Amino acid sequence: MPSGRAFAPQSARNAARSEVVMHYRELPTPALTVDLDVLERNLDRVAELCRRQRVGLRPHTKTHKTVEVSRLQLERGAVGLTVAKVGEAEVMAGAGLDDILVAFPIFGAEKLRRLADIARTRRLLVSLDSEATAQELSRAAAAQGVTMGVLVEFDAGARRCGLEPGPALVGLAKTIEKLSGLRFRGLMSFFGNIWGTPAERRAEAEHVAERVGTALAAFRTENLPVEIVSGGSTPSAEFAHLIPGLTEIRPGTYVYNDLNTYYQGACSLDDCAVRVVATVVSTAVPGRAIIDAGSKTFSSDLLGSGPKSGYGYVVEAPDAPLIKLNEEHGHLDITPSRHKFYVGEVLTVVPNHVCTTVNMHDEIFTVRKGEAVGCWKIAARGKTR
Amino acid sequence: MPSGRAFAPQSARNAARSEVVMHYRELPTPALTVDLDVLERNLDRVAELCRRQRVGLRPHTKTHKTVEVSRLQLERGAVGLTVAKVGEAEVMAGAGLDDILVAFPIFGAEKLRRLADIARTRRLLVSLDSEATAQELSRAAAAQGVTMGVLVEFDAGARRCGLEPGPALVGLAKTIEKLSGLRFRGLMSFFGNIWGTPAERRAEAEHVAERVGTALAAFRTENLPVEIVSGGSTPSAEFAHLIPGLTEIRPGTYVYNDLNTYYQGACSLDDCAVRVVATVVSTAVPGRAIIDAGSKTFSSDLLGSGPKSGYGYVVEAPDAPLIKLNEEHGHLDITPSRHKFYVGEVLTVVPNHVCTTVNMHDEIFTVRKGEAVGCWKIAARGKTR
Repeated sequence: MPSGRAFAPQSARNAARSEVVMHYRELPTPALTVDLDVLERNLDRVAELCRRQRVGLRPHTKTHKTVEVSRLQLERGAVGLTVAKVGEAEVMAGAGLDDILVAFPIFGAEKLRRLADIARTRRLLVSLDSEATAQELSRAAAAQGVTMGVLVEFDAGARRCGLEPGPALVGLAKTIEKLSGLRFRGLMSFFGNIWGTPAERRAEAEHVAERVGTALAAFRTENLPVEIVSGGSTPSAEFAHLIPGLTEIRPGTYVYNDLNTYYQGACSLDDCAVRVVATVVSTAVPGRAIIDAGSKTFSSDLLGSGPKSGYGYVVEAPDAPLIKLNEEHGHLDITPSRHKFYVGEVLTVVPNHVCTTVNMHDEIFTVRKGEAVGCWKIAARGKTR
Repeated sequence: MPSGRAFAPQSARNAARSEVVMHYRELPTPALTVDLDVLERNLDRVAELCRRQRVGLRPHTKTHKTVEVSRLQLERGAVGLTVAKVGEAEVMAGAGLDDILVAFPIFGAEKLRRLADIARTRRLLVSLDSEATAQELSRAAAAQGVTMGVLVEFDAGARRCGLEPGPALVGLAKTIEKLSGLRFRGLMSFFGNIWGTPAERRAEAEHVAERVGTALAAFRTENLPVEIVSGGSTPSAEFAHLIPGLTEIRPGTYVYNDLNTYYQGACSLDDCAVRVVATVVSTAVPGRAIIDAGSKTFSSDLLGSGPKSGYGYVVEAPDAPLIKLNEEHGHLDITPSRHKFYVGEVLTVVPNHVCTTVNMHDEIFTVRKGEAVGCWKIAARGKTR
């Protein structure tokens, strides 16, 4: 059984009942839950997928933000962890975990000082795409007498961060080699453009392969070794073998999955490990059932794949679309539904985007065979810095 | 100067510098900031607006989720506070504040037990719209030997919660009168349908007035006194005088304001007290500047008024739309902009929806005349239950 504190609901009164195992449908709602059997199956599958593709797995912890799940990933052979923010790195390092990639161009003296502080006791990699950021990072590293590994970010087609593959990329790597406290270790990119149906994703993976090839060719021309080539995302994970030179991938969502993953054909609904348990609190307005879970529970992320409408999938009544979220109210359109809704009824909902949903919560209840067996602190929630 | 702990940035290292006053643009980013002069002006204006309209002000604390701002509201004559969740009521009651309306139909034994526990030492009002919820609430109140005031929710046109004005509403009030531990105090509704341009809002306020009139007439017929009629929202606040019988309103957003309020013509940009301070972290992709503030900082709430596109207003470069948010990345489209963006540049952004933005953060930095002078804990953040 995974590590985790014993089940302890929110109130002091209930804490006294912490030995009582309850069915997940009896949890105070809205409750974020994870089915441990499904989680473990997802972890095993992608660990095996990476072994088969001969690519390292450095999972992005942004999906779960939880020390316990990071440990499960490392136990299954992950080469390290990925985080986006210094505060997230602090949580993982503070729990004794090591080999952390900060996959975000951190800028700002206070944050870089904290980053260099972590590097005193942990192996750190940092990604960046500008000389300005490299200079700042070098100053912070030098001030604490540490060395940090740097991955230079290139744009594989997502048009977010990253230099164009070619001379500028090599130029930045050379600049880094000259800066004290920094060591150029390789390249990094986010494959957000690998998205959509399996056929669309495969075609885009081939474009990404070309851009990775261009990037690596420029380094070969200059005789500059590239030790790490880090890419990926969950929808691109199964196509890693199409991208020569890739040494590791950074999927995040695969641990829990969500509707965005499902509608891309990259998982089944049964592979969605996280469900929001909610209660119907009002049926007073004709055609509506209101649940006690709104954007403060799900986030207001729209669906980016499939029908691109709605805010979640109601397991007990898939024919009742979750059409609108206020902060605390979820609006089910029950007009097309054959289900009979009533005040006090408990429903379970698969969210659109599980990463942003998890970030709304302080804790996640672990469930095994329908029973709530524990509760994990989402320790890296809300670490915006 | 308002209460609040001394300025203490996140890291232990920086805590040592807590006496140093810094310019808000030097804060570690992304930083949520509130301009105290603007906040105080907003507080004064709506307090005065309510006095002029002879209607009580029971501000919804969901916007600020902060004890300090609740105190400023009560000091200016608010008749009480509004919250949506039991956890929010616990925060406000725990800080010694009283007369709290829970404007949400709370369902579930654990939450109702906590609610009844608050009622042992505080004046509580609870809204609901079903007999099922009333029965549950009564059981919880009776179990602790407390009495809670109940407002019955009716639908004034927003089609969210609430019974149709008429006999069913009176029937539920009568049922409540018979239940132990409960006392019928009056009616409650959310005026979310009063939205849009000033002309649209005024017209809708007249519809709401009709529905309030219908509701009250049904109670008069039955000789059942209605002590409280609670309505409102920020965009409807100035039209309270058009709704006869209204005894109090519950605006939330007015303390901070946001782009949704601005584009409805209900405030100016200068009245937007909350800004996100962010740093440009990448300009590597042509046509893009990426800031270190994404949906984990702003929430992903779309703009519900005005142009209905974009995720925020960049004060330094209004001609660069914030077109897309990932969790940690904000995408500025700089193609149409005359501004020159550079890595390390600090920008300030007015959010679309300030309530959901505030809920993403653990703390808000207070600013006076450009200087960061303190930091408030957003103590009721993330209280989903």
